[in-house]
Amino acid sequence: MRYRKKHKSSGNLRKGSKDLFTVKWENNRVVMIDQTKLPGKLVYVRYNKYEDVAKAIERLIVRGAPAIGVAAAFGMSLAAISSRAKTPNSLLKDLKIAYNRLRSTRPTAVNLVWALDQIMKQATSKSDVQDIKNSIILTSLNMATDDITINKKLGKNGAQMISNDEVILTHCNAGSLATVTYGTALGVLRAANEMGKNIRVIATETRPVMQGSRLTAFELDHYGIDFSLIPDTAVGHLMSKGTISRVIVGADRILKTGHVYNKIGTYQIAALAKRHDIPFYVAAPISTFDLTSSVDDVVIEERNKNELMRMGNKLLAPKGIKILNPAFDVTPPELIAGIITEKCVLMPPYEKSIAKNISYG
Amino acid sequence: MRYRKKHKSSGNLRKGSKDLFTVKWENNRVVMIDQTKLPGKLVYVRYNKYEDVAKAIERLIVRGAPAIGVAAAFGMSLAAISSRAKTPNSLLKDLKIAYNRLRSTRPTAVNLVWALDQIMKQATSKSDVQDIKNSIILTSLNMATDDITINKKLGKNGAQMISNDEVILTHCNAGSLATVTYGTALGVLRAANEMGKNIRVIATETRPVMQGSRLTAFELDHYGIDFSLIPDTAVGHLMSKGTISRVIVGADRILKTGHVYNKIGTYQIAALAKRHDIPFYVAAPISTFDLTSSVDDVVIEERNKNELMRMGNKLLAPKGIKILNPAFDVTPPELIAGIITEKCVLMPPYEKSIAKNISYG
Repeated sequence: MRYRKKHKSSGNLRKGSKDLFTVKWENNRVVMIDQTKLPGKLVYVRYNKYEDVAKAIERLIVRGAPAIGVAAAFGMSLAAISSRAKTPNSLLKDLKIAYNRLRSTRPTAVNLVWALDQIMKQATSKSDVQDIKNSIILTSLNMATDDITINKKLGKNGAQMISNDEVILTHCNAGSLATVTYGTALGVLRAANEMGKNIRVIATETRPVMQGSRLTAFELDHYGIDFSLIPDTAVGHLMSKGTISRVIVGADRILKTGHVYNKIGTYQIAALAKRHDIPFYVAAPISTFDLTSSVDDVVIEERNKNELMRMGNKLLAPKGIKILNPAFDVTPPELIAGIITEKCVLMPPYEKSIAKNISYG
Repeated sequence: MRYRKKHKSSGNLRKGSKDLFTVKWENNRVVMIDQTKLPGKLVYVRYNKYEDVAKAIERLIVRGAPAIGVAAAFGMSLAAISSRAKTPNSLLKDLKIAYNRLRSTRPTAVNLVWALDQIMKQATSKSDVQDIKNSIILTSLNMATDDITINKKLGKNGAQMISNDEVILTHCNAGSLATVTYGTALGVLRAANEMGKNIRVIATETRPVMQGSRLTAFELDHYGIDFSLIPDTAVGHLMSKGTISRVIVGADRILKTGHVYNKIGTYQIAALAKRHDIPFYVAAPISTFDLTSSVDDVVIEERNKNELMRMGNKLLAPKGIKILNPAFDVTPPELIAGIITEKCVLMPPYEKSIAKNISYG
């Protein structure tokens, strides 16, 4: 079941007035901002079935690696609540079905699997049906709270290196709308802003799903941070003119070698930054690290060609043509000046700094 | 006055059936494809006032440096026909007004000024009202015919260096729809195709105006050339995977130093091609060369922010935000493997090869 509550358009929101809560738990339901309706309308959807959460992840109603992780954890809470199992074993069977369904929604972001695994670990550690259910709900709630704490720590760690009057380019959306509420790459910018540093942001549109125009622009406007939107084609031009002092982006998965999977277009921004001696940073929580896979193992999601074919009611390209639409790309460690986490800013060589500082499980 | 004739949607056109005529002269009127309606509808517009031609250039109903040049020349023919001047001097005064209006439409493409100057040179060489009018019409008609001949020569010069099974990336639209009918960068690809070479094309969407999805995809589909459309954000990713063997783009202006002004996004493609050792070529007629300006002189057109704000009926970004929307960028000579013209393929160092081979006026 799905409820909607319409809010005023973004233009009427009081700027900086309130934190945007992307995903939360309320009265045994998952409440999330329907990001497909932004920037036109700020609409909240409420779900009480995990299948609806799975579909919401697939349809990008909720997106952003950390937000997807928390949404999936809440999906597991819904699965737990709605299970009629009388024994721990049959409850675990129900939970495993929900786990597999939620896990299948998006292949590249690793926080999704990380969150689901945390939930299952809790579930299998208890031996009573109600204990299992309670522990799942508690774990998912903690995960949401932790996400905020982690983002704020990460934000401070990143903001410390930002100087006054910097112009920082970001790609896609690694903000409130990609997390529970504070943001990773945009969390760094918010923290810098809160420290009183004067910064200006350049946000790319981020074709084809336009997370930059629709989400990052909405968010920066909402929080009153000075920014300009540019087409993805203008990145090199602005760098060549000396406009950009730093790049900060989020990540969907980081390997132990320092290879970063993030929104398509990230790699070319990193390569262009290298050419122009502009430091390129990644901001991501420790849950984004995948310490076991290698570059050859990671599946890059290929999304529907309609993302390039249509925009609203407008046909953008001739019907029936071939389209390549990879959702992510991989940025090699040699292009990355630092990886900002809640623990510290990891510096090259990443094989060493990651091995030394990152562990979980 | 403006007439419209609706044609079937592109999906119903017989592929490769007929050359697309972007701009032509018919019964003392300018006839052009309304490129803002593509790829949904192939609509022709007919104008008998130069002011309508000027507006058509501003609104991108006709675009592409060579096509704009010919359209402006036909605009001068309309100005000549409609002038009621009785003396050469008053006719030249009327023509100068039309010249200034047409010249003001777009600041970066140099073929526009080149074509207008050719027309005025003819006009001022005659001393009789009817002679002036006739010579302008004849010059504009020759310009249109020459454009086709020049494109075909240029196409052959470029196609000779293309090997079988190449995958060639192009940006924006430098095809039929950017010229009278044959194309420059896409003319090279058409010529390779006509020589029986098996090629595949990768076309970028080309935000914000989507000339790649709307025009290049329409054209390649029309001519039956194998291609895939990609978002501008996927260029680096595909290059890193080794998919692309060559880049060929058009140009709006080329300086004597070999600096190339072309659609925004060209520079970053050239920089990425350099990083991946992929040869980057520019294809343009000699009328694209500006032998007098330096990089500091050239104005890069900043277009309306609505290009990033809306698509059809869809709002893409929050209202009232700041947007940077430069229409062109400049690619420095060190990134360019060769410049394909109707005379020859110019090779570095360009200061020398351009000085030796290019002259006009």
